[in-house]
Amino acid sequence: MKLIEPIQDLYQEDFAHCYGCGRLNEYGHHLKTYLEGDLTKSTFLPKDYHIAIEGFVYGGLLASLIDCHGTGSASIFYAMHNGITITKDNAPRFVTGNLNVTYLKPTPLGKELKITGELKEISRKKVITSIKIDVDGNCTVKGKVTAILLPENFGKVK
Amino acid sequence: MKLIEPIQDLYQEDFAHCYGCGRLNEYGHHLKTYLEGDLTKSTFLPKDYHIAIEGFVYGGLLASLIDCHGTGSASIFYAMHNGITITKDNAPRFVTGNLNVTYLKPTPLGKELKITGELKEISRKKVITSIKIDVDGNCTVKGKVTAILLPENFGKVK
Repeated sequence: MKLIEPIQDLYQEDFAHCYGCGRLNEYGHHLKTYLEGDLTKSTFLPKDYHIAIEGFVYGGLLASLIDCHGTGSASIFYAMHNGITITKDNAPRFVTGNLNVTYLKPTPLGKELKITGELKEISRKKVITSIKIDVDGNCTVKGKVTAILLPENFGKVK
Repeated sequence: MKLIEPIQDLYQEDFAHCYGCGRLNEYGHHLKTYLEGDLTKSTFLPKDYHIAIEGFVYGGLLASLIDCHGTGSASIFYAMHNGITITKDNAPRFVTGNLNVTYLKPTPLGKELKITGELKEISRKKVITSIKIDVDGNCTVKGKVTAILLPENFGKVK
């Protein structure tokens, strides 16, 4: 599968408000997850105030990036696995069931974070990905995201 | 042990800049963790833009709150366990080694979140806590935080 745009730009409008990665959230992080070969990639430059302790990135932000990159990656891997051609507004939308983050070492502030996702397990409604964050070629954080496929009518029956 | 102030107000200045809970971070969430009996408690009202999908709180924020409540709780439980009397600026400071968050159901937006922490394991440099988030009496998220004691001179040797 080829995918030129980030998956978050292909979510349906109703599902594109996420603070972490929604293109329609004006206050959010706007994380963008791309497919590169068999892996998913995104980058992020934390703000100065995304601090844990002087010089290091806040762990909650790192967990958030892993979360959104994980659900975005799940969408891409699910489409690949099921032969779905993603066009505008039809990307499958996943939410997080479990998020497991291990902080291997402090992540320095002021540098671009490179986030990589890899498919670990896939079934009819669940995708498990392994996500890592590198800074200057060193992995500082590893995560595992268990993502659950959102029913198409979620939030539309009111 | 009695503790009237939230633990985050008793961190040393150098360790009080965390985006999630630092009193000195002007952009942050300012989470405040209190001791109540054998449990730790905090509350948080998400902003309208802390959205995942319409009507529901962003999972990355929930993970962040569990993270900060976990390290704050670790500080309190560690002091209790070791007979440390916490006075201004001497609270032990923990960082997260592992954060495991399970999203049991969507967390509705617009309501106060009640966050509760419980001690699970404690050793010389590590405290494991179980954290839950309730909304209107229903638990929507559960987490486990493995927190590591920060060396006293961390960040001061430059």
